[in-house]
Amino acid sequence: MSTAKLWTDEEVSRDPRIKAVFDDIRLTRNSDFVNNFWRALANQPDLLERTWASVKTVMIAPGALDPLVKELIYIAVSTINSCTYCVHSHTASARAKGLTAQQHAELLAVISLASHTNALANALQVPVDPEFEVR
Amino acid sequence: MSTAKLWTDEEVSRDPRIKAVFDDIRLTRNSDFVNNFWRALANQPDLLERTWASVKTVMIAPGALDPLVKELIYIAVSTINSCTYCVHSHTASARAKGLTAQQHAELLAVISLASHTNALANALQVPVDPEFEVR
Amino acid sequence: MSTAKLWTDEEVSRDPRIKAVFDDIRLTRNSDFVNNFWRALANQPDLLERTWASVKTVMIAPGALDPLVKELIYIAVSTINSCTYCVHSHTASARAKGLTAQQHAELLAVISLASHTNALANALQVPVDPEFEVR
Amino acid sequence: MSTAKLWTDEEVSRDPRIKAVFDDIRLTRNSDFVNNFWRALANQPDLLERTWASVKTVMIAPGALDPLVKELIYIAVSTINSCTYCVHSHTASARAKGLTAQQHAELLAVISLASHTNALANALQVPVDPEFEVR
Amino acid sequence: MSTAKLWTDEEVSRDPRIKAVFDDIRLTRNSDFVNNFWRALANQPDLLERTWASVKTVMIAPGALDPLVKELIYIAVSTINSCTYCVHSHTASARAKGLTAQQHAELLAVISLASHTNALANALQVPVDPEFEVR
Amino acid sequence: MSTAKLWTDEEVSRDPRIKAVFDDIRLTRNSDFVNNFWRALANQPDLLERTWASVKTVMIAPGALDPLVKELIYIAVSTINSCTYCVHSHTASARAKGLTAQQHAELLAVISLASHTNALANALQVPVDPEFEVR
Repeated sequence: MSTAKLWTDEEVSRDPRIKAVFDDIRLTRNSDFVNNFWRALANQPDLLERTWASVKTVMIAPGALDPLVKELIYIAVSTINSCTYCVHSHTASARAKGLTAQQHAELLAVISLASHTNALANALQVPVDPEFEVR
Repeated sequence: MSTAKLWTDEEVSRDPRIKAVFDDIRLTRNSDFVNNFWRALANQPDLLERTWASVKTVMIAPGALDPLVKELIYIAVSTINSCTYCVHSHTASARAKGLTAQQHAELLAVISLASHTNALANALQVPVDPEFEVR
Repeated sequence: MSTAKLWTDEEVSRDPRIKAVFDDIRLTRNSDFVNNFWRALANQPDLLERTWASVKTVMIAPGALDPLVKELIYIAVSTINSCTYCVHSHTASARAKGLTAQQHAELLAVISLASHTNALANALQVPVDPEFEVR
Repeated sequence: MSTAKLWTDEEVSRDPRIKAVFDDIRLTRNSDFVNNFWRALANQPDLLERTWASVKTVMIAPGALDPLVKELIYIAVSTINSCTYCVHSHTASARAKGLTAQQHAELLAVISLASHTNALANALQVPVDPEFEVR
Repeated sequence: MSTAKLWTDEEVSRDPRIKAVFDDIRLTRNSDFVNNFWRALANQPDLLERTWASVKTVMIAPGALDPLVKELIYIAVSTINSCTYCVHSHTASARAKGLTAQQHAELLAVISLASHTNALANALQVPVDPEFEVR
Repeated sequence: MSTAKLWTDEEVSRDPRIKAVFDDIRLTRNSDFVNNFWRALANQPDLLERTWASVKTVMIAPGALDPLVKELIYIAVSTINSCTYCVHSHTASARAKGLTAQQHAELLAVISLASHTNALANALQVPVDPEFEVR
């Protein structure tokens, strides 16, 4: 159960501002499916508009990183933040963008190795080498 | 300051087991520089050997993900785990593997967007859509 | 499912020490409802007593911060700690103390913005400005 | 040391896009001081513009929550995310907005109590009470 | 629901590499029960083999720390990482190794106290005393 | 640098309430050294008193867990919470209570293994086995 109401399509259809965002999500993704994240966020119109604008800019507009690579980074962040919803939604997105079983295995290998060495570096409080300085 | 002694090259040279790992790090990376993480971990020989073996397997052996992509994922995990040392060392590694300014900018854009939506999904406790189920 | 038994009212009634805490929770909150957190904590009488004493002191006794503001801070901490239970219970508490939809929207906006800039500052390892020093 | 160059005022003055953001930061805050966060973010013009726009919208524009309350929530998030830079910068902001010693003490009391109960709820895996459901 | 298929015993039996790990889990633990963690990890054979090897080395091989103490540390880490699955599985393991109610209560007292003081130290950004330096 | 003033012994001596806590810290620990954590917390008298009372009860009073084991759990929590100060202070405490190099190595092995499997379980969203249910 969520801490805010999930908007149904009928409720969305009665609010032009929310409807405009949902229409753009559907158009941009070329799919009728709008997932629960946006239905919960519909309670906060400003935040809904700004968040969707950011997702379009960062995840969908072409750039220097491959769309699948961006999803891998998203899954990594969501895993460490322990965000159940986001791990599910972005693993599904990555699969839709062609994630192979071997790539998923390597993603998990990197995430778990990084967690292992992060814990060691934090427990040992390793001082940063001057060689890593940006010049 | 660290919570364990950082081993100097001279101390390493007197311990064959630690020396073998340091030699392999230098040989594998084709560089004489061994960073502080390994010098702190030298206090725990078993963990040093196992951790280096994992790094070689996951980060250095060829696989389905590009080496630079693996570094991006590593930076993402280290950022969210708030591991100062690891963010520094892996940003340096990524630069050594060709990270461009534009790629770094997009990496930061994805990490910060994911942190933004993770916080929203966790605050709203959005229920996972059945559409995300793995079949 | 929990990792420890949830105490029923009947079980509580048979243990005077636990009963005293549950009675005080009911009296202080002027409600018969005692939520599962306390029913799980009843397995640890010392911790139950100390935790309830802290909640009374910090959250219920009058002070310099408004009770609703304290709940907003509590929700922020619980969200970042990814505590499903606490996000639910303290969002309900905040609503009971008059949280409006607009205030909830702004709370979520601040939590998600802070998560966004925290990730950037940690990824960029921004050095603290000397101007922030406490004198 | 940071993982990206900090832009000096002279460097900023030579890049019209970055300069426009810095000018707006100075104008909005009515202060010549631009802190290191923005100087590090200047390496990523898109992210700089979007982040500053969000800060203006969320933290500076008037709304349903008091500006000082927003800073308290920001400090809470930054503390739990272990963001050294952000804890420093937003504690300084809160002081500039009138934070009293007593309010700071209560903020710390709530943050530490929430961390205490979050840990207990996560360790006990307390199931969410149906009474907390949003209707 | 998981983000990867959980392998049934029949599926495991058809893959010699996975079967070898599952056989060793059953033999080492002297139990026919193989929990879902390994069934999900079976999708990543390399990671399955390496993870099980690490668990055998760290948690099962005799060493300087008592097996129950290792489980308490594991629960502490899993709680702070907000890993629902791991808190459940390692609390069950600790109980199987003799965890008493009083020990569980003290574990929770230490985890929650540490979370309380961690939050304070991070909010106050307490500088490390030179007395703590390792010599 | 900290976000609050660190109290000197002279300042403490002028405030009877703070002095009483510092005296008790010195008496209880049988040492004249009072570390910076308490000097920063002296700005919040209520919180100082409650926190020191909790530390005495949980970490110093005899109980079902060995004092060194409690320090190991404390280090584990502090590492995952990325609390630089607390990792330093409690590693020093553990050494003062007899932590051996081999025990420290095993502690780090468990913390890093747990971080590795926590990340995997969270990324795979492994469902909790019904066998782990508390009856």
